[in-house]
Amino acid sequence: MPSLRDAARGRILFGGDYNPEQWPEEVWEDDARLMKEAGVNSVTLGVFSWAKIEPRPGAREFGWLDRLMDLMHANGIGVVLATPTASPPPWMGARHPETLPRTEDGSIVWYGSRQQFCASSPVYRRYAAALTEDLAARYANHPALTVWHINNEYCTHCWCDETAAHFRRWLRSRYGTADALNEAWGTAFWSQRYDSWTEILPPRKAQYMKNPAQVLDFKRFTSDALMECYVAERDIVARHTPHIPVTTNFMPLWSGQDAWAWSAQEDIVSVDIYPDPRDPRGGQYNAMLADMTRSQAAGPWMLMEQAAGPVNWRGVNHPKPDGLNRLWSLQAVARGADAVCYFQWRQSRQGSEKFHSGMLTHAGEQGRTFREIKRLGAELALIGPAVGGSDVPAEVAILHDWDSWWAGTQEGRPSSLLDYTEVVQSWHRALWENGVITEFARPDADLSRFKTVAVPHLYLLTDAAIDNLVAYVRGGGRLVCGFFSGVADVDDRIRPGGMDVRLRELFGIRTLHEWWPLDAGSAVQCDGFRGGLWSEELEVAAGTEVVAAYRDGELAGLPAVLRRGRAWYLSTLPEPEALRALLGGVVREAGVEPVLAGLPDGVEAVRRGELLFLLNHGRTAVTVAVPGDREDVLTGKPVQGPVELGRHGVAVLRSAAP
Amino acid sequence: MPSLRDAARGRILFGGDYNPEQWPEEVWEDDARLMKEAGVNSVTLGVFSWAKIEPRPGAREFGWLDRLMDLMHANGIGVVLATPTASPPPWMGARHPETLPRTEDGSIVWYGSRQQFCASSPVYRRYAAALTEDLAARYANHPALTVWHINNEYCTHCWCDETAAHFRRWLRSRYGTADALNEAWGTAFWSQRYDSWTEILPPRKAQYMKNPAQVLDFKRFTSDALMECYVAERDIVARHTPHIPVTTNFMPLWSGQDAWAWSAQEDIVSVDIYPDPRDPRGGQYNAMLADMTRSQAAGPWMLMEQAAGPVNWRGVNHPKPDGLNRLWSLQAVARGADAVCYFQWRQSRQGSEKFHSGMLTHAGEQGRTFREIKRLGAELALIGPAVGGSDVPAEVAILHDWDSWWAGTQEGRPSSLLDYTEVVQSWHRALWENGVITEFARPDADLSRFKTVAVPHLYLLTDAAIDNLVAYVRGGGRLVCGFFSGVADVDDRIRPGGMDVRLRELFGIRTLHEWWPLDAGSAVQCDGFRGGLWSEELEVAAGTEVVAAYRDGELAGLPAVLRRGRAWYLSTLPEPEALRALLGGVVREAGVEPVLAGLPDGVEAVRRGELLFLLNHGRTAVTVAVPGDREDVLTGKPVQGPVELGRHGVAVLRSAAP
Amino acid sequence: MPSLRDAARGRILFGGDYNPEQWPEEVWEDDARLMKEAGVNSVTLGVFSWAKIEPRPGAREFGWLDRLMDLMHANGIGVVLATPTASPPPWMGARHPETLPRTEDGSIVWYGSRQQFCASSPVYRRYAAALTEDLAARYANHPALTVWHINNEYCTHCWCDETAAHFRRWLRSRYGTADALNEAWGTAFWSQRYDSWTEILPPRKAQYMKNPAQVLDFKRFTSDALMECYVAERDIVARHTPHIPVTTNFMPLWSGQDAWAWSAQEDIVSVDIYPDPRDPRGGQYNAMLADMTRSQAAGPWMLMEQAAGPVNWRGVNHPKPDGLNRLWSLQAVARGADAVCYFQWRQSRQGSEKFHSGMLTHAGEQGRTFREIKRLGAELALIGPAVGGSDVPAEVAILHDWDSWWAGTQEGRPSSLLDYTEVVQSWHRALWENGVITEFARPDADLSRFKTVAVPHLYLLTDAAIDNLVAYVRGGGRLVCGFFSGVADVDDRIRPGGMDVRLRELFGIRTLHEWWPLDAGSAVQCDGFRGGLWSEELEVAAGTEVVAAYRDGELAGLPAVLRRGRAWYLSTLPEPEALRALLGGVVREAGVEPVLAGLPDGVEAVRRGELLFLLNHGRTAVTVAVPGDREDVLTGKPVQGPVELGRHGVAVLRSAAP
Repeated sequence: MPSLRDAARGRILFGGDYNPEQWPEEVWEDDARLMKEAGVNSVTLGVFSWAKIEPRPGAREFGWLDRLMDLMHANGIGVVLATPTASPPPWMGARHPETLPRTEDGSIVWYGSRQQFCASSPVYRRYAAALTEDLAARYANHPALTVWHINNEYCTHCWCDETAAHFRRWLRSRYGTADALNEAWGTAFWSQRYDSWTEILPPRKAQYMKNPAQVLDFKRFTSDALMECYVAERDIVARHTPHIPVTTNFMPLWSGQDAWAWSAQEDIVSVDIYPDPRDPRGGQYNAMLADMTRSQAAGPWMLMEQAAGPVNWRGVNHPKPDGLNRLWSLQAVARGADAVCYFQWRQSRQGSEKFHSGMLTHAGEQGRTFREIKRLGAELALIGPAVGGSDVPAEVAILHDWDSWWAGTQEGRPSSLLDYTEVVQSWHRALWENGVITEFARPDADLSRFKTVAVPHLYLLTDAAIDNLVAYVRGGGRLVCGFFSGVADVDDRIRPGGMDVRLRELFGIRTLHEWWPLDAGSAVQCDGFRGGLWSEELEVAAGTEVVAAYRDGELAGLPAVLRRGRAWYLSTLPEPEALRALLGGVVREAGVEPVLAGLPDGVEAVRRGELLFLLNHGRTAVTVAVPGDREDVLTGKPVQGPVELGRHGVAVLRSAAP
Repeated sequence: MPSLRDAARGRILFGGDYNPEQWPEEVWEDDARLMKEAGVNSVTLGVFSWAKIEPRPGAREFGWLDRLMDLMHANGIGVVLATPTASPPPWMGARHPETLPRTEDGSIVWYGSRQQFCASSPVYRRYAAALTEDLAARYANHPALTVWHINNEYCTHCWCDETAAHFRRWLRSRYGTADALNEAWGTAFWSQRYDSWTEILPPRKAQYMKNPAQVLDFKRFTSDALMECYVAERDIVARHTPHIPVTTNFMPLWSGQDAWAWSAQEDIVSVDIYPDPRDPRGGQYNAMLADMTRSQAAGPWMLMEQAAGPVNWRGVNHPKPDGLNRLWSLQAVARGADAVCYFQWRQSRQGSEKFHSGMLTHAGEQGRTFREIKRLGAELALIGPAVGGSDVPAEVAILHDWDSWWAGTQEGRPSSLLDYTEVVQSWHRALWENGVITEFARPDADLSRFKTVAVPHLYLLTDAAIDNLVAYVRGGGRLVCGFFSGVADVDDRIRPGGMDVRLRELFGIRTLHEWWPLDAGSAVQCDGFRGGLWSEELEVAAGTEVVAAYRDGELAGLPAVLRRGRAWYLSTLPEPEALRALLGGVVREAGVEPVLAGLPDGVEAVRRGELLFLLNHGRTAVTVAVPGDREDVLTGKPVQGPVELGRHGVAVLRSAAP
Repeated sequence: MPSLRDAARGRILFGGDYNPEQWPEEVWEDDARLMKEAGVNSVTLGVFSWAKIEPRPGAREFGWLDRLMDLMHANGIGVVLATPTASPPPWMGARHPETLPRTEDGSIVWYGSRQQFCASSPVYRRYAAALTEDLAARYANHPALTVWHINNEYCTHCWCDETAAHFRRWLRSRYGTADALNEAWGTAFWSQRYDSWTEILPPRKAQYMKNPAQVLDFKRFTSDALMECYVAERDIVARHTPHIPVTTNFMPLWSGQDAWAWSAQEDIVSVDIYPDPRDPRGGQYNAMLADMTRSQAAGPWMLMEQAAGPVNWRGVNHPKPDGLNRLWSLQAVARGADAVCYFQWRQSRQGSEKFHSGMLTHAGEQGRTFREIKRLGAELALIGPAVGGSDVPAEVAILHDWDSWWAGTQEGRPSSLLDYTEVVQSWHRALWENGVITEFARPDADLSRFKTVAVPHLYLLTDAAIDNLVAYVRGGGRLVCGFFSGVADVDDRIRPGGMDVRLRELFGIRTLHEWWPLDAGSAVQCDGFRGGLWSEELEVAAGTEVVAAYRDGELAGLPAVLRRGRAWYLSTLPEPEALRALLGGVVREAGVEPVLAGLPDGVEAVRRGELLFLLNHGRTAVTVAVPGDREDVLTGKPVQGPVELGRHGVAVLRSAAP
């Protein structure tokens, strides 16, 4: 199987999306010159070139792309070549309106933007396959080709009639009989029983709350339907170039793609990461997504898109202050990225993203952004050989699951304030601030290699997953689990007792009386900390240790945090310092050590391969004590004693005596 | 005419919606055992059973329901049997899409939730009638049958073409000629004149504000169209079982059903009441809805649905702390309920309401909720014989009207902050805190038996209603009226002078210059209190007493509260303490006494039949002085001297010497 | 060319919309009596009379209008006669559904409100033309006719298929070839290239951001399409009555009509102005709209609509306190209005605007509002002869442009907080508070007569406009320009460097590195003031004067306000006092003097013709020192020494010795 290593070959891939069709050809030469100046070694071509290649049905205009491929190759720049199927040309929607998506309320989603295709449309699929076939045939042997990039940020949901037919086929394959579907969806409720397959629809606009199992299956289906589109194109390019790795880029905290399932279909796992430059926790956010993607990749991963400066889709779009782009890019490398790429190379002058920054902004080569890009390119060239291809080992796992996310964030829940990703981020942050490297894992994965497993919040857990957790603890592992977990089964059916009995036994809970979600802005006092978002009315079994009890509110005196042997249960969300202390205690008890002890606030240390990365996320300079003699890889100079890190500063150190 | 007395027979009905179709039959026996343990004597069956009974068009599956009816009867539990017409099976929408509602903007409202029927659809009505016919025929003589429950929470509005045709028939019947309709709707405005009936539509999506009289008539029509559905089914069951009372359950503060008109078509008035457990005024809210429903019933009423714990449709759904369910249930009985029922018996494991509590929650029989249910069931059995069938007399009326609510809450008003139900609740609260029992009445009802009549806010008043109010005061009654009342006539036409001249004369107002609504969060100082929401620039007639004047703002020096003889007018909304004092003064002057004087804050006293209920809505224990010797009905012990009420505590006392 | 002077003939037109079709004929006589009592000399008839005149297709009912025209004439009241084409009767939508607009998501916009016509509909246009023809023919020679008023507040956007066809014709005329359109729209971005004209659509509902150039052109097109409707009707009436001036009323801060283009097609420029009576800057807002309209009219203008009291479309609709209606009306006259009219004469009793005030409110002739109207009518009669027909000269221009407004307020911008009209208002306010009279001008207008030109914010500037600005400064003018200006070209294409190089050279900017928009509620400290909304990372060229630098945040030390000779650039929005001081300094340097020096806060002075208007916008009485001897025009008394102005008071003075 080809992999990222085949494309990177010991380097860090550095570059970005390149959309030369937006520019006259005379600009291309200038692009090549500046790319070389910046150390760019990889560009992504073709993402939005469908209308350029196929300006009308069946036409093929490859000449311009031939010239570009050659130009890149002549300049030593590899090409990540995209199938341009994310944005069909207007002619498709105009001639085949049935390829256009429909919203929940039946409105047509028109062309004139992007991603206006119904994943279930045979016409769309046929055109996409034909184009992919020709593209793959044409460039299979081009020396510039390094990676296939299928489509872009798959995300379109559709509720049209073709989708309905496809959804029914998917359901029939899942359930076999309508009886089984009725059972799984609980259609005895509200007289929703389906008498025949033809009655079944996507969850369209309704009078009141929709069937949650139907909504859950529709999310599963949509992820799968989009993945079918991906797999179809992947199979085509792989047939032409079995040696070239294939990827598609995820939006990691957008819930539409089950990345565990998708990444199993990829040779390279790539991702788009856009922290808000104003977010004081942007660095930890970055770290979390790096950990998540590295876990999906089971090793080095590709940062396919980030912004060198501002994006254009927030309410207020902030540029990156000096050093921040470099800091976050090197952080990605520290956490396993073997590719640091941007959307996009040259900022567009027209279209919806003309205010989205590029490596080369409107200010051009004199701009501050491009200066920082050049510095970064040079540094990556120094770092690459020492880390390329290497993994970042972790001893602590955080469990993360799409079914649970989908099932747990529907209407009609105990609290609409419960945001799955915020809870996960709170837990990751607590571990990150402990200096602990984490990996993300599926609930049914082999957990035996982890010293501690954290479950921030998994509302839905399958029987297999529950058995897996119980076995993990029985086998010596330490499990720490957040509130409102193990509540539903695979069909979003509430488990007897409101929480699976195996888990209740594991944590020592006799009765779960009620969930007591907290109002926005309110908190509950517990022993030594305040809890937010949630609380639970629990009755413990004999022998359960009450680590902390509630101290005010309706639950005063009842247990808030429990422990039974190596299994902890948190029925509330402790405030950040408390969660940090609590999880820090658990992992230390498990023998997990931080990468580097005694770091100043906001400084992250990561070891990858032979290198130690020190990353200052803070806005003031700090001094970091580093034991032993080191070499500063970026300056080539020896380092003895403490290291100075300026604002957003980074040091990359190698042991002087390897 | 059959009535609630026929079903209750001196007991308090206790139970809830029972949806056994969601459970395997082996659970049914367990249900019956636990119902008996809890003192349940009534369950509602069939509300959402259409697809179970008629899995495909014309089919009939009654066997399971036969077994259930028998099982309930064998356990001494009566059945409130529902026509399952609130939620047609998917096959109906799939085969007859014209039965599906359309929104204002033409979108289809699909199946997959509930209540997706157009009340004007002949196909829907035909299927509903056929099923009702067979259901009634089958169970007419079943000994378990106690009450017919038609449909459920009628609420669906529809803007489809069949609705348009039906609306036109309704309008033709109301107005006779298009000229009369044009006159009533004021279509001379904005060139809206209808040249023929066929042009008339429901008020669909428009470029700007819609015709308010059309919107008003559409609300009237929709209430009537839904009521036609009700009446059609009621007539069928009544033909089979003239001795069995019929009801349908209201959502009392949802404006879609004119409950005065609907209750006239019911043998039993039943209602669903869901206060927020976190609402510090939940107790008063409950009291208001009890008073409202008792007034519609003209006597005992049925609490068809409440929640034993949390609901699932708020942003944050709070459980009920210990004692609150009991408190609010006994309060309902004190205020005239002869049935204390829940949605639902056993909490669902699947579907949209799996987080809505039941009498038997996910925690099961060990759960705190079920323990409280059992206690309540035992207590109701003790109380029932003493109060069942008795009314709760009131000397003060609050006027309440749907036409006024509908006309007064449209777009384009002086202030969108004016919330009809909030104003009504403010006034009811002021009287409730005075310990006064209130009744609600239509503006054109016979008011002669009341010592005081309160009009919190009735924007629209018919001529008959105005004459009624004037005659009431002339006949010796005391009338206290809130701002922005008597403004519009039956067609939502502004009355000359901005307020009807008869009312202006009654209150001593010479000229109403302007309405001065107040901004959110702002208030106007008056003599001795602050007014909110509204103020008016009034010029009084000679001889009018200015009870309080405005003291700041644009109206400083002008009258705020007026009195002319036995008629008061409040041109602002006094803050709660001031409104309490003001209305307290009026009713005391009228000779109205509180049920029990000198009660601690938050304690409510109600006399019903031979019993005195003391209800502590507060969160701390209190002591209540009660004159005379009493028997505590719940403990059977004699009570002398003050009564202790714990948090949310209730005492039910009988005079020792009756 | 006929003009407002022909209608006003030395008077101030005073009156309002008159909708007698809403009232029985017996009220008309009363109207005429009260109009005369109030000094009304002009009413607008027919605006919403389509259904009254043409109750069914092709019918004509002119008798009622004949009687009204005669009645008005008999009472010496001129008639502004409207083509009633803003609100087609229901029969049109019912018989010709294709005349109804469609929203972006395809929903039909139904009748039952107003303005439900698609400007591209041939059927609508045909009916409108036929009616206009007959109306014009019938009243061409009526002596009451003074002005033609075409339609009303043109505003309807439509995305239907007929609009699509019309849009394509408009685009073909603009671009000639599809290639040119593809180039202008930048369709190389996101694969949006159009292969044929038939594929092109209005910007309908899409999956993500729409093509901004398409959106810009659609706004241009819609303004033009509506203007075609206007021009078609204007041509008809002008053919019948070449001597009668024609107008249509603008909503000035609603962006849908490019008023520069429209006003060129009008004989009279008229406008509807509705400040919020609670807005403390309502007076300045009024002044700005007066200046804007006077600039479009190039002289006297018509205040077609204002409210005598509250409107009905805000969340909370406040009446006007005593004196405010008079103050704002006289202010309009001071700033060039030769007509002070209202929507409407008599407040409606029915329909959506029954809570919108009239000159004659529900309170009738005893109401406070009508008393103030009568006073105002009398005063206007005194003022008219001295100012009628005269202009209000200005030495300072503010540049204002619809293309820039449309292009600069789309999705995907650096900051969605940037509100074009708020920035313009901030700048106008700063000049208004300096006592400087301003004119508004197009960016490509001849600016040579202005001593200073201000550009608050013009995101899009054409090449011609940029050359115009540069030439203006070279020719001796002073230019002061706000941030984020000159960024895009006529196609919304970002200019190289992010800002046009000619402007960068003019202001002395070497490199524009980044736009740094500020978060809501945040500010940046600069030398001596705080900036809001925006900041920019600029590198200045040698010789550029840094007037003020940033002092905190990411840009600390970088230039905030620049000057190069007579050209200033403000890269942030200074707080009001600072902007006032800054612009005050610029205009003083240019030799611009305030109308009257040393005015108390909130007092505005304007000279028009031979009169000096003193307007107290404050809520407390003030004393104003006025040099020389004067006559008070309103009292006829001589004025020596200071003038007392009560709350909202006005004095109108004439030099004693002319």
